[in-house]
Amino acid sequence: MGVEIERKYLVRDVSVVAGLSGTRLRQGYLSVDPERSVRVRVSGRLAFLTVKGITSEGGARRAEFEYEIPLPDAEELLDSLALRPQIDKTRYRVEAGGFTWEIDVFAGENEGLVVAEVELPSETTAVVAPDWIGEEVTGDARYYNVNLVSHPYKEWDKAR
Amino acid sequence: MGVEIERKYLVRDVSVVAGLSGTRLRQGYLSVDPERSVRVRVSGRLAFLTVKGITSEGGARRAEFEYEIPLPDAEELLDSLALRPQIDKTRYRVEAGGFTWEIDVFAGENEGLVVAEVELPSETTAVVAPDWIGEEVTGDARYYNVNLVSHPYKEWDKAR
Repeated sequence: MGVEIERKYLVRDVSVVAGLSGTRLRQGYLSVDPERSVRVRVSGRLAFLTVKGITSEGGARRAEFEYEIPLPDAEELLDSLALRPQIDKTRYRVEAGGFTWEIDVFAGENEGLVVAEVELPSETTAVVAPDWIGEEVTGDARYYNVNLVSHPYKEWDKAR
Repeated sequence: MGVEIERKYLVRDVSVVAGLSGTRLRQGYLSVDPERSVRVRVSGRLAFLTVKGITSEGGARRAEFEYEIPLPDAEELLDSLALRPQIDKTRYRVEAGGFTWEIDVFAGENEGLVVAEVELPSETTAVVAPDWIGEEVTGDARYYNVNLVSHPYKEWDKAR
């Protein structure tokens, strides 16, 4: 098992991924219980089953157990067993400020949402955010993929 | 993925396993949703993550996806993430009537419960039950391991 330490931000300027080629990610959940979420993900020709534990205070550390599974299994799990709606997004990788940023451009029920995540070696690592980065949303549960299934971005009240 | 076809019975005469050596099974659930249950099982030195789908009419067929995972992962999943209580049972194998019977003797919250399962090549295969077999409980949801977690045998009203 591993522990993820990452920070998540909204992307202010989506043109940062213009012209880049991304990887389509399709993912669904077998459990959306935040203390023991179970995710099926198809990423190109690879597929994974991932269990995540509760997020600790501050929201940057989560227990994570990930196993590669056969692609046909993952497709059948998504088609016949996983909860709906499912997450459909394209992931781009951008190097900036000494970090690799993963930028997710959502489609489907979460179209319009673009977030950037950076994985860090420790919880105290300082992040220098590039100028295309907007508000930090680390620990904001609305942006967890698991919650974007039950309460997708298109349904949010964005007037506040 | 595979499809399980199996029948389940109560065991009338537990002495059938007397003197046999069994395998201790410890299992817990990350999801007890019957349409997409997710189980962590430690069986001796082996460990598995298993996803099961909904049971079809009649209760003998279930979609099942099983993946071997590292034992330390399974132990950590059971200790820190899986739902409680967990299933603790010893499994014995007995050959009878041309079939291999798996006999589960439950402990802990389900002590007193002993069930026998037989896996079949097709749904129409006739089963000749040995004389130590009692009532058939195939498709009786109370006996699903997933439900023995939320509503263990010791809490059942057995007066009816």
